[in-house]
Amino acid sequence: MQIVVPFAAETPKTRLASVLDSDERATIARAMLADVVDAIETAGHDPLVVSTAPIEIETPTAVDDRSLTRAVNARLEAASGPIGIVMADLALVTPTAIDRLCAHDGDVVIAPGRGGGTNALVVRHPAFRVDYHGGSYLDHQAIAREAGLRLESIDSFRLATDIDEPADLVEVLVHGSGRARTQLRSLGFELDRSEGRVTLDRSQSR
Amino acid sequence: MQIVVPFAAETPKTRLASVLDSDERATIARAMLADVVDAIETAGHDPLVVSTAPIEIETPTAVDDRSLTRAVNARLEAASGPIGIVMADLALVTPTAIDRLCAHDGDVVIAPGRGGGTNALVVRHPAFRVDYHGGSYLDHQAIAREAGLRLESIDSFRLATDIDEPADLVEVLVHGSGRARTQLRSLGFELDRSEGRVTLDRSQSR
Repeated sequence: MQIVVPFAAETPKTRLASVLDSDERATIARAMLADVVDAIETAGHDPLVVSTAPIEIETPTAVDDRSLTRAVNARLEAASGPIGIVMADLALVTPTAIDRLCAHDGDVVIAPGRGGGTNALVVRHPAFRVDYHGGSYLDHQAIAREAGLRLESIDSFRLATDIDEPADLVEVLVHGSGRARTQLRSLGFELDRSEGRVTLDRSQSR
Repeated sequence: MQIVVPFAAETPKTRLASVLDSDERATIARAMLADVVDAIETAGHDPLVVSTAPIEIETPTAVDDRSLTRAVNARLEAASGPIGIVMADLALVTPTAIDRLCAHDGDVVIAPGRGGGTNALVVRHPAFRVDYHGGSYLDHQAIAREAGLRLESIDSFRLATDIDEPADLVEVLVHGSGRARTQLRSLGFELDRSEGRVTLDRSQSR
């Protein structure tokens, strides 16, 4: 299956600005993208990165500077069969998680993100369109319902965990196994387990 | 399978104090406990609430005022077969999620929580003991490895989502279907979808 991976190339991951400078954010964003693309390929699917600007990557890439919603809907309109959409910041994703997403046979299969978002989709029916504004998980349920489509949800922590905020980096260090984790560690991030909870520590690198 | 549900009866959910008063926190904690117990029963298992103090509930209950780690280890020591441990604040849990936890056949099956925690376990080997201090997911992996046990992880958003902080209540309103969601709504909580993200709104009730 073709799986579209939308990528915001220009100002990635601004909510990580308190712990990563602009170049570091770009590095981590690219590492997460590479991890997502790897998982899709290992699961036997065909990634297509849809980037807001040209990027250097060996994966097939299309440049589309429209909003996320419009860029994805253009792909849905053009699709001649099932198509996936997986966010580029799912640094915990594994081939197994991609398999689970693609194995269900609903007209629309959705993996919710935390905070009511939509982190991954498989669309098998031409009537479905996305709307990534706030609370998109509930919106996508409503869109599917109104179109009479069968929607299934995937219960996956790995697919639910998009990396937006500093606390999310803890999840990459605990559960990640790819480039993003390696990059975070080379930037000096470690787990601080001295308190009751696991937190992020970067003191050793600076 | 017997599934132990540890419950802190006396000062539940202090990290919700900014949005819920003490009585309300107790109400929500009890509603979540009831939802967890329901899911376990519907999945065909036998819940045993292990509470730090006596509580009124129709489920079989044992009172044990020791620390979480010691109370759970006492149950593991006494177990004559497979035993589960599921946290009482997993308000999104469903019978299907419990089925997934119990269907794997590792010596230790673990559902990580966010922030490196351990939200649910199935223990099938008498050598395993818990340690719920910070970063327990990594500790539990290490304990299993050192004992030569086969550990499997469950990739479940519903099991990963323990309800600790105000932002977590959003997940209950979006994905919950039990008493906890009903109670939150009756306390006046609604989703605020006017911004780009889904947030919590309680303005209408006060």
